[in-house]
Amino acid sequence: MTGTADAARPPGRPRSVRADEAIIEAALDLLAEGSTIEAISIEAIAARAGVGKATIYRRWSGKDALLRDALRTLKGNVPQPAGRSVREDLITLVGAVGHTIDPRAERIMPCLVPEVNRSPEHHALYQNIIEPRRAVMREVLQRGVRDGELRADLDIDVTMAMLTGPMLIQRMMRWHPDLDETTLAEKIVDGVLAGIRAGGA
Amino acid sequence: MTGTADAARPPGRPRSVRADEAIIEAALDLLAEGSTIEAISIEAIAARAGVGKATIYRRWSGKDALLRDALRTLKGNVPQPAGRSVREDLITLVGAVGHTIDPRAERIMPCLVPEVNRSPEHHALYQNIIEPRRAVMREVLQRGVRDGELRADLDIDVTMAMLTGPMLIQRMMRWHPDLDETTLAEKIVDGVLAGIRAGGA
Repeated sequence: MTGTADAARPPGRPRSVRADEAIIEAALDLLAEGSTIEAISIEAIAARAGVGKATIYRRWSGKDALLRDALRTLKGNVPQPAGRSVREDLITLVGAVGHTIDPRAERIMPCLVPEVNRSPEHHALYQNIIEPRRAVMREVLQRGVRDGELRADLDIDVTMAMLTGPMLIQRMMRWHPDLDETTLAEKIVDGVLAGIRAGGA
Repeated sequence: MTGTADAARPPGRPRSVRADEAIIEAALDLLAEGSTIEAISIEAIAARAGVGKATIYRRWSGKDALLRDALRTLKGNVPQPAGRSVREDLITLVGAVGHTIDPRAERIMPCLVPEVNRSPEHHALYQNIIEPRRAVMREVLQRGVRDGELRADLDIDVTMAMLTGPMLIQRMMRWHPDLDETTLAEKIVDGVLAGIRAGGA
């Protein structure tokens, strides 16, 4: 990636946005090429980025912190719902589930599933990446309960799983080939809001 | 596994349930040890099972058919709901989502996620395994619509994703560490049936 060509300076180089970017890019390139979280090393990332290990350690405490930032980069910013209605905000958030802004994500994200099952550290890393997104959805649901729009006895955690799960299995594994992803977020949100019983009971 | 010790007979051995089982076991052992679907070969499975390749080809048309049966073995029989109520049947089916009956499944199933993204053939294999389960859930939902218990305009495919997704992300990745899996199926089904809007509207 760009940023690596001029980065072959000694480790004493001052910390810079440019070096940070080259390091993140190097980590993502290695993951996209098939490195596992377990196997990837600070050494390999430093070599790929053309920086010294010390440059990495000045910015990140270690591999997990660096990978957390790298994987968050793949997903882009946490979406900020407009706050006009619960329905509209949830459609924005569900539409962002499993959505990524970097083509390398298609190779990297599915590979994380076996990894998060491999060790508590990897699972913690995964939680670290998704919790900020869950927090935004939680806030929308809590607001809906406060405003009387949603049931007072709502189980927020289960509801978040109900909103997230269908989109995630579809984006991650194309769970059902016949589902239309362009309308799925809206259908999930309307389904979860209204329920499927006849007569709206 | 058992069944391999006495299987070191020449390839001409008659087809038998015992050989079939040894072949399935060998395939699952290799997958559990980290073989990918792409890398696993009929040769390796035959060697591990102590049978000749011809024995495998008398029973299965090729690797995909054999792996389909092996992976189905991990999941056990397709659950048969009792047919008393839509709610009860859905709880049975959602409770079976991501459920497996073999300890090797914990190592194998998450590893399939990257694989189903790797090629159309792997995705077809995955669909082949899950479609019989979807068919049972579809039938329950269609019965609910026919009986007037569920909305006449129900989007069956989206509803199946709404029921399956939350349990699958939880069982597959422990999506939310705070969710109680023992009550999750019931909560998902009740949530999807009733909706989350205040006043049941």
